[in-house]
Amino acid sequence: MLYMVEMVVKIPHTMPAEVAAEIKAREKAYSQQLQKEGKWRHLWRVVGEYSNVSIFDVASNDELHTMLNNLPLFPYMEIKVKPLANHPSSIVQE
Amino acid sequence: MLYMVEMVVKIPHTMPAEVAAEIKAREKAYSQQLQKEGKWRHLWRVVGEYSNVSIFDVASNDELHTMLNNLPLFPYMEIKVKPLANHPSSIVQE
Amino acid sequence: MLYMVEMVVKIPHTMPAEVAAEIKAREKAYSQQLQKEGKWRHLWRVVGEYSNVSIFDVASNDELHTMLNNLPLFPYMEIKVKPLANHPSSIVQE
Amino acid sequence: MLYMVEMVVKIPHTMPAEVAAEIKAREKAYSQQLQKEGKWRHLWRVVGEYSNVSIFDVASNDELHTMLNNLPLFPYMEIKVKPLANHPSSIVQE
Amino acid sequence: MLYMVEMVVKIPHTMPAEVAAEIKAREKAYSQQLQKEGKWRHLWRVVGEYSNVSIFDVASNDELHTMLNNLPLFPYMEIKVKPLANHPSSIVQE
Amino acid sequence: MLYMVEMVVKIPHTMPAEVAAEIKAREKAYSQQLQKEGKWRHLWRVVGEYSNVSIFDVASNDELHTMLNNLPLFPYMEIKVKPLANHPSSIVQE
Amino acid sequence: MLYMVEMVVKIPHTMPAEVAAEIKAREKAYSQQLQKEGKWRHLWRVVGEYSNVSIFDVASNDELHTMLNNLPLFPYMEIKVKPLANHPSSIVQE
Amino acid sequence: MLYMVEMVVKIPHTMPAEVAAEIKAREKAYSQQLQKEGKWRHLWRVVGEYSNVSIFDVASNDELHTMLNNLPLFPYMEIKVKPLANHPSSIVQE
Amino acid sequence: MLYMVEMVVKIPHTMPAEVAAEIKAREKAYSQQLQKEGKWRHLWRVVGEYSNVSIFDVASNDELHTMLNNLPLFPYMEIKVKPLANHPSSIVQE
Amino acid sequence: MLYMVEMVVKIPHTMPAEVAAEIKAREKAYSQQLQKEGKWRHLWRVVGEYSNVSIFDVASNDELHTMLNNLPLFPYMEIKVKPLANHPSSIVQE
Repeated sequence: MLYMVEMVVKIPHTMPAEVAAEIKAREKAYSQQLQKEGKWRHLWRVVGEYSNVSIFDVASNDELHTMLNNLPLFPYMEIKVKPLANHPSSIVQE
Repeated sequence: MLYMVEMVVKIPHTMPAEVAAEIKAREKAYSQQLQKEGKWRHLWRVVGEYSNVSIFDVASNDELHTMLNNLPLFPYMEIKVKPLANHPSSIVQE
Repeated sequence: MLYMVEMVVKIPHTMPAEVAAEIKAREKAYSQQLQKEGKWRHLWRVVGEYSNVSIFDVASNDELHTMLNNLPLFPYMEIKVKPLANHPSSIVQE
Repeated sequence: MLYMVEMVVKIPHTMPAEVAAEIKAREKAYSQQLQKEGKWRHLWRVVGEYSNVSIFDVASNDELHTMLNNLPLFPYMEIKVKPLANHPSSIVQE
Repeated sequence: MLYMVEMVVKIPHTMPAEVAAEIKAREKAYSQQLQKEGKWRHLWRVVGEYSNVSIFDVASNDELHTMLNNLPLFPYMEIKVKPLANHPSSIVQE
Repeated sequence: MLYMVEMVVKIPHTMPAEVAAEIKAREKAYSQQLQKEGKWRHLWRVVGEYSNVSIFDVASNDELHTMLNNLPLFPYMEIKVKPLANHPSSIVQE
Repeated sequence: MLYMVEMVVKIPHTMPAEVAAEIKAREKAYSQQLQKEGKWRHLWRVVGEYSNVSIFDVASNDELHTMLNNLPLFPYMEIKVKPLANHPSSIVQE
Repeated sequence: MLYMVEMVVKIPHTMPAEVAAEIKAREKAYSQQLQKEGKWRHLWRVVGEYSNVSIFDVASNDELHTMLNNLPLFPYMEIKVKPLANHPSSIVQE
Repeated sequence: MLYMVEMVVKIPHTMPAEVAAEIKAREKAYSQQLQKEGKWRHLWRVVGEYSNVSIFDVASNDELHTMLNNLPLFPYMEIKVKPLANHPSSIVQE
Repeated sequence: MLYMVEMVVKIPHTMPAEVAAEIKAREKAYSQQLQKEGKWRHLWRVVGEYSNVSIFDVASNDELHTMLNNLPLFPYMEIKVKPLANHPSSIVQE
């Protein structure tokens, strides 16, 4: 089941650089683990922004929330979620 | 080169049903041709809306505009385009 | 799996009264059937508006979209969908 | 009498973790007490957000405001309230 | 129990003048009846707009919705409702 | 001459509690004085918010601005003002 | 007593040209009469828009509303009103 | 003196195709004349939209408004204007 | 050449009172100098807000930007600029 | 391939003046290097704002994002990007 997720990162300017670096490293590791598991299907950078467009493939709303809530950057992001359905004109069933 | 495109369809209620059906049939055919060519990479329905989230893969801004402008439903849609870039945490180069 | 759905009804003033009445009657029948099946869990009117707040309980994004898309008033509504998850402070697992 | 209440939590990043934990513990206890009393009928998490959708069942506007105002997280939340009425298509009188 | 209600009137330009006049006459009569009953406590015009700010005093959300829904101009208005509570600094209990 | 004034209070979380308490005490005293003078005609709390809806009765724009500007909480509020006029359907001339 | 008034004109495309011309002629005459009386102090066009920025000088909210409501284009305009006060840094008392 | 102008074209669906074609032909001719005179310095299409981003170089606000107001599509466009100034980091004085 | 300029002042609560007072004193002096030179034609307070509506009369966009950029409060203001043109119904050429 | 980029600079008031000056100096140098390379084609100040309107000419979305992401002020800016296409009425192919 697919969802489009848009994440905008807003790290406070007062956060020490090494703290931010550590959080980002954990974020990257966790994100790549979810990608390898096929849960986080696509991850793109929006040009000019510190934000991304992502496609998640999960079994339930609860699974998606748990994943997003576990992101190390979760407290520093604005996240919007749109549930997706199959489109009648699509040539594949994703 | 990837772009996220969001299309909201707003067909006037005054349009005769057979005219709408004919436009939608052409839209579907054209959309599926672009999907087969690999230009229109993904096409999803947004749950509860007459709108879609799409990913296009084109060689230039001009190519993308020409495609969108040729959509039979173009005069009846509100379209937003976000250019996408490679994300440093992505495990693939899309 | 729960979703909050907000529907705002905007029937064109040019629609003949008997056409509107027929659509609304089918909407009501379909809505009540879904309520009886336990799919449409709650349906409330927003005070002062021709709109509602609803809670749906469905197995997937696709099932929800199909239901909403089949609503006789669908072409005349603006619909917003928010996927819901279990809340850690809730005393029940809904 | 029912109301939909949407709460978005915005705890300042400068708040010490143990202070936040203590406030959240009191929030949870108070919330669960109101749920047990039948005042706070439903409590759902919005997927991807630190926010909730709730349904309250109270005797008056004043009672609702007093409850919300007493929430330990009240100073750190943006709250929107929509009064609800019975819907003519609902199969129950809630 | 008090509510602030803001109503913006948007009568279609295509409505015949005599139809509009008849609806407005019924609106005025109904509004004045509710004012005399003490339900519609205040009614003010917003300067420069075809809209009003009103204060209603009713026993329940359902009573308020029924009143607003019965307004002859209801299909031609955008209405926003804010439930009001007693203010701790107010010198009267309204 | 009447005006609707909506005030949203946003006290910084960094303000010491006793400073806030002192400002609020002065705010309350000043507000009640203006109410007793008949200048601040109505004062209601918006349910679920740290904000109010007020009706002022003053002789001029300048008098209103001076009053609002003198509010001890003025530097911590977002204020919106709507000038009101007599409504042709009102049964009283307020 | 001064007010800034912003008017955006939205004449329906279906209005016959001669009807529009007649309304605009009456609007112009009425506007110029109010300007000569010193009520409509300033009238400027916003570059690129069919809208204006105006300054009115009237004795009361009611007088302003009556004037605006009498504008022949009133049913075809979106109007926003901001009451103005003397500015402490202004070198004149307007 | 430079201005950025953004124009969104909204031709009513009820306009006959030949009327629209004639207006667009006049728009194009007029636009190209202004471009040749150096007044309309740049004209770009926004990808996916029936809108443009333009740079005008004119002697005054009045000259710009006259030009925009004379556009055959003016009654069917939403136009936003931003006055531009020399940027201290620019390597040219435009 | 005229421009409407709207300035909203947002001085951080952490700024020491004497620093704020010194900036405001310089702002006032500079503003009054520009008023005396006829550049800053009108300056009004918006009722209930720490903001103003102003009319500037300058020779160019660059001159206006330089003036605004030199305001001592510039780093603490949100400023919106609308270029103005002569209105065909105005009885004066401003 | 062209893009319109709008950048709004929001440097925190808590940043020491010499730090800000150093970042701005690097921003200016980098901006001028990109201008000389023909990548950053136009750079204009928006009148009254600490923001700019820019036109970039790059080979790909990725190249543009890398450039913007490398701006020393990037962490302190809100950036919006609009991809541009050739306009059929333009007399040049930019």
